[in-house]
Order: sequence, then structure tokens, then C-alpha cells
Amino acid sequence: MAEALESLESCLEQHIPASDLPEVKRILYGGETRKLDLPAGALSAAQERDFELQGYGFDAASEQLRRPRVVRVGLVQNKIPLPTDAAVAAQVAALHRRIEEMVEVAAMCGVNIICFQEAWTMPFAFCTREKLPWTEFAESAEDGPTTKFCQELAKKYNMVVISPILERDEVHGGTLWNTAVVISNSGAVLGKSRKNHIPRVGDFNESTYYMEGNTGHPVFQTQFGTIAVNICYGRHHPLNWLMFSMNGAEIIFNPSATIGTLSESLWPIEARNAAIANHCFTCPINRVGTEYFKNAFTSGNGEKAHHDLGHFYGSSYVAAPDGSRTPGLSRTRDGLLVVEMDLNLCRQVGDKWNFKMTGRYEMYAEKLAEAVQPYFVPNIIKE
Amino acid sequence: MAEALESLESCLEQHIPASDLPEVKRILYGGETRKLDLPAGALSAAQERDFELQGYGFDAASEQLRRPRVVRVGLVQNKIPLPTDAAVAAQVAALHRRIEEMVEVAAMCGVNIICFQEAWTMPFAFCTREKLPWTEFAESAEDGPTTKFCQELAKKYNMVVISPILERDEVHGGTLWNTAVVISNSGAVLGKSRKNHIPRVGDFNESTYYMEGNTGHPVFQTQFGTIAVNICYGRHHPLNWLMFSMNGAEIIFNPSATIGTLSESLWPIEARNAAIANHCFTCPINRVGTEYFKNAFTSGNGEKAHHDLGHFYGSSYVAAPDGSRTPGLSRTRDGLLVVEMDLNLCRQVGDKWNFKMTGRYEMYAEKLAEAVQPYFVPNIIKE
Repeated sequence: MAEALESLESCLEQHIPASDLPEVKRILYGGETRKLDLPAGALSAAQERDFELQGYGFDAASEQLRRPRVVRVGLVQNKIPLPTDAAVAAQVAALHRRIEEMVEVAAMCGVNIICFQEAWTMPFAFCTREKLPWTEFAESAEDGPTTKFCQELAKKYNMVVISPILERDEVHGGTLWNTAVVISNSGAVLGKSRKNHIPRVGDFNESTYYMEGNTGHPVFQTQFGTIAVNICYGRHHPLNWLMFSMNGAEIIFNPSATIGTLSESLWPIEARNAAIANHCFTCPINRVGTEYFKNAFTSGNGEKAHHDLGHFYGSSYVAAPDGSRTPGLSRTRDGLLVVEMDLNLCRQVGDKWNFKMTGRYEMYAEKLAEAVQPYFVPNIIKE
Repeated sequence: MAEALESLESCLEQHIPASDLPEVKRILYGGETRKLDLPAGALSAAQERDFELQGYGFDAASEQLRRPRVVRVGLVQNKIPLPTDAAVAAQVAALHRRIEEMVEVAAMCGVNIICFQEAWTMPFAFCTREKLPWTEFAESAEDGPTTKFCQELAKKYNMVVISPILERDEVHGGTLWNTAVVISNSGAVLGKSRKNHIPRVGDFNESTYYMEGNTGHPVFQTQFGTIAVNICYGRHHPLNWLMFSMNGAEIIFNPSATIGTLSESLWPIEARNAAIANHCFTCPINRVGTEYFKNAFTSGNGEKAHHDLGHFYGSSYVAAPDGSRTPGLSRTRDGLLVVEMDLNLCRQVGDKWNFKMTGRYEMYAEKLAEAVQPYFVPNIIKE
């Protein structure tokens, strides 16, 4: 049932009369997004490989002193190709193969920066609270096999690769982290960004496995633009987006894994609000499909033990600083979303709306420092 | 043209097939909101007085130790009844009369807390950059005629009244402020909350008239719930919402005046995001209609001088902490939105999602204090 609707946007396209559709789109999405003319070879390859391929573009006004800074980003959403009880090495290999064939199509579409979904080399098994075999999916961010695999892709296609994995940090007692590895188009590991906020909601039992990230809010200056990675649950925290923006991010990726019953009505809101509030592009990515686990588990809601976390609803999209957004990818299929953006739009919108200029951050730094004190007295006015 | 669509929600209701409509509503709005059964007398009075009347309800789970804390709020959106070149006193009197007849209907609907639109006693004339006669609309927050008028309404109907006006502050050199006066259901003035962020965007030339507010983020503990007022452009600043929430606000009103071409695609996003991020109810209100001014003015965009700011698109709504929301009021008509809410939902959603618990505010207080330093060095990683 939760899987039934293939895509909200195609449902609107199909049923809203042509006379009203532009207004509906303007109010819901900030207008019609320009469709990209993608190469026929890429479209047919996507069809053969059974994934959706969509392309959209955001433009900016031309300026006198800056040339357009046009970049193409790719967002990848995918199911796990093998069942969760297949051998760990086989599951990882199958995911590598699947991503490889999707990245090849991204390259045909001229993608400069590509981002995969959260913990992309594994099923999202944290719902089980079991340690083995799931912790065996963890790898070194610096020189694990997945990082090496991504370095090859980066060099081969001259593409920046964002690879969110389960990290094993041998230098610090072999701890686990939820980490995005950022790899330059040269193939060098630029650095890593760890998930700053860890959920304790529903079956998202991730706090059993890893702690809140300690890498702060790094931004990565790449040849194609200044980027940052806000992983999954950090999407719900406006201050997390803000600090990435304060450090200069023009594109903030949000690789995620989230399910329909929990968050689907929040999904179109939060990343888009972050794009508006911070004058930047945001790129939320969600996996698709339902993943079944051998051992049943309960959900802390009094209901019977069951074998899956629920339906990951995909719907990856890109939001622009002017409040407009692309349609979402499918709710049920693997997909690649190619989005062209002129990064000059960020400063243009900032100069128009002035949220940074009018933000009064000095006041908030003080207020927040007061508010976190254990004996903080809230400002409550009574009769 | 920008006025053509009466309401996005009624357009969807009309055209999306019944088989898909619940899914579309779940994804777009977090599901179907319960319709309130409003008194027939109120519905017919609203019809006679030519304004829309809608009612919706948000429920919470029952608890053992707390009784439901059910409150009804009223959101009022309205056109100016007289042309902007009528005498100041006549315009104010006409607005008082219009609001009086809408509040009477709100009382029939059992409203406990009512909020009017931003600068409700006047046309939104700041686009003109002229001082007279517009500054003559300013009044004392403590004992001006509008405050006295609202005190009478509050006592008569046992209703908390939020009255956003242009304030003249005689104690501080006769300065102007954009201020919401909060009046208890006893009739006493509880206090005031000034607009914290002043726009410099498009024709919103308010910074010509008044400065950023200096009342901080007060919350008002009323008999019906703990409330706060985030005026207009403060909607774009996530930290502004956060600090009202940190001080304990369960309902944050957002009286506004904003136009279609500028902000309509942002409107459904920002206040709803704030409700989600802060586990509270938010109530954005926008005026309706187009207001014409005698003297033409330019807009700093190279276009010809003209006589209006644009179309205020109404669309007032209420968003709940669980991410659901009511439909919006009309884009073109005066309206009263009556919303019943069980405030217990705020803590219930907070205990589920834990954004305050996982917010890491201590880290952000430090980071923000660093980021505002003039010689702040952003955390940028280069190859």
C-alpha cells in the first residue's frame, strides 16, 4: 500500500488540468524546472539496466565579472541487489557492480559530482540491533576496498565521488562511524564527514552501533564547487545545515535511508527549507525498496516481531536556493537524478533575500550558549 | 493571473482521483486533517459577512497523567476595507469593525486564542517609502486605541488576542517598531514581541521605518497554552523559531504580509519546517488582496513605477509538530481558520523524534560564536 504511488509528481502531471498545472507547480515547487536533454545512449543504457534516469537544470542570471559556474551533480538511489542473508563479500560485490553501471551512465550525462545513498555498501540493518554480520560491512574510510573502488571511478570519469559508508576507525579503538568519504576527481581522498546527529526513533537503532560524529562541518573545495555532506538524520537539524553553509558550502548532499510511515511528509520540507534558509543547493537522497532480515525483531511499539524496517521510498530530489525544486525520483525504482546548476545562483539569491546579512547570529550565539546551561531560566511572561 | 487559483488544496480535491487522493495528501500534507464541526450559526454569519470559515483539528494520544490540553486557535486574514487614500482614522475604524465581526464568529466557534495579520490596522504601505500619512497609523502598544479595542474583545469573549501593529514607542524617542501586542483573556496586556528580523527584499522597505526588534524571544504563558509570536520575515530564520521554542513555546504564530511573486513557493515550507524542527504548532497568517497607493513607486528592478506591492495571497494555515498541516485558507478572500489542537502532541512528538535531545546545541553555541567573528576562518578542505 505504501508503495502504491509511483511518484507524486507524475500523478499531478496526469490529473491536474493543463490550465491549472503551471499554478499548482509554481505554488508547490516554485515553478517548472528546466528538463535536461540527456544523451540517447544514456537513456537507453538506463532502460537496459532497469533504472530511472531524469535530468533537470537550474539557471542563474548572467553576471559581468563571474562566468557561469555550471556543474552537473548525480544523485543515486538503489535497492540492495542481493538478499540480506547472502555472504557479506557477495553483497558488497553486487552493490559495487550495480553502482558501477549507474556511474557509467552518469558519466555519459556529464556528471561532475556524484553522491550515493547512506551506507550504500550494505543493507540498512541497524534495525536488527544484531552485530554480526552487519559490522563486517564496515571499512576504513581512507583505504578500504570501497574507497579504492570509488577512487578508480573518480579517476576514470573525472568525477568527484561522495561515498557514504559504515566506517571502521582502527586508529581510535576500532570504533564504527557513519561516514561520507569525499574523493576528488583526481582520485585522491579529500577527507571525510561523519554523521553529526544519530537517530533514536522507530527502528533506527543506529545509536547502538556508532556515536555522534566528531568531524564538525567540513566543506570540500572541489574543482566543480564547494560541497558538504549532511548525513540522513542531520536533515532534521537546521543548525547542522547552517554550519555547513557558514563554512561556505554551495551544495549540501544529504544521503539518507528513511521509510514512508515515519518521514515521508517531512521529506519534501526539510532539505528544501535548508536550501532556502542557507542560499544553497541541497540534494536529499533516499534508498528504495524493502529489505528483509532473517531474524524477526520488535519495534518498541507493542506490535508483533517482524522482518523488515518498512518501505524506503526513494524520492531523491534537488532543491535550489530560490525555493524551487526538481520532481523526485521514483518511490519504488532505482534511479539516477542528473541536475545541472549554475552555482552563481547561490550568491544572487543571497543578495536578494539577505538571510545571512539579517541573521543576527551574534545574538543567537549568546542566546544559545545561555539556553544550554543546566539551570537556564526560559523567558516566560505570565500574568 | 497570480490571483487566479482560489486554493491549491481545493484544486487537488477536485482533480486527483479518489483512489490516489489519500496518498497524495499523505505525502504532501501528512495525511487528512480532521474537519471540525462548526456551529451552523457561525457558518451562516461568515457567509453573510463575506468571509471564508474553515475548521480543522489535530489530536494526540491519551496519556495517564496529563489530561488532553485542547485549545482552539483562530487565524484571521483580511483585505483592507477602505482605499489607502481614505482618512487614517476612517481606515482604522473600518478595520476595527471588520475584525470585530470576524472575532464574533470566532467566539461562536469556541476560539481561545486569536491572531490577526501583521500590521493589521493599516495598509502595508512600507513599499512607498513615504512617511506621511503611514506613520500616523502607529500606536502605543500599551494603551493605544487598538490595544484598548482588543482588550474589550478579549474580556468580552474570554479570548487571548494577538494584535500585531505598527508601534510608536514614546518612551524611547518616539521610535517605530513592528510589534505584536499579546492580550490575556482577562483583558490585561501580557506584553509585546517585536519583529526580530527586518527584510530588505523587493518592495519590503520596512528597514526605512523601524529596526530589528529588541524584545528577544518572549513566550507568553496563557490559560490556554504557552505561545509566542514570530513576525513575518522572522519566518525565514530557523534560529528565530528555535529560540521561541527553547523558551517553551507550544504554539508560534507568524503574522505576515507577503506577496505571490516573491514568496509563494516558500510559504508552505518554512513554517511547516519550523513546526517539525521544534516539536510545536506554527500558525502562519498572510493578508489578502492588492493594495493600491496614490503615488507610484519603483522597485529597484529597473521596471516602471507602479502603484501596488503585488498580490497578497492569504493561504494562512496551521502546521503540527508531526509534520501534518491544515489546508490553507483562500488565496483571495478574507477568512477565519479555526484549529483545534491537543497541545500534548508537542511532547509526544518530541519524545518520539528527539530533536531537542539530539540537537547538540552546546556545540552549535560554540561554533556560531566562532563563525560570527570578523576574522573567522571557515573549515574548508582543499586537495
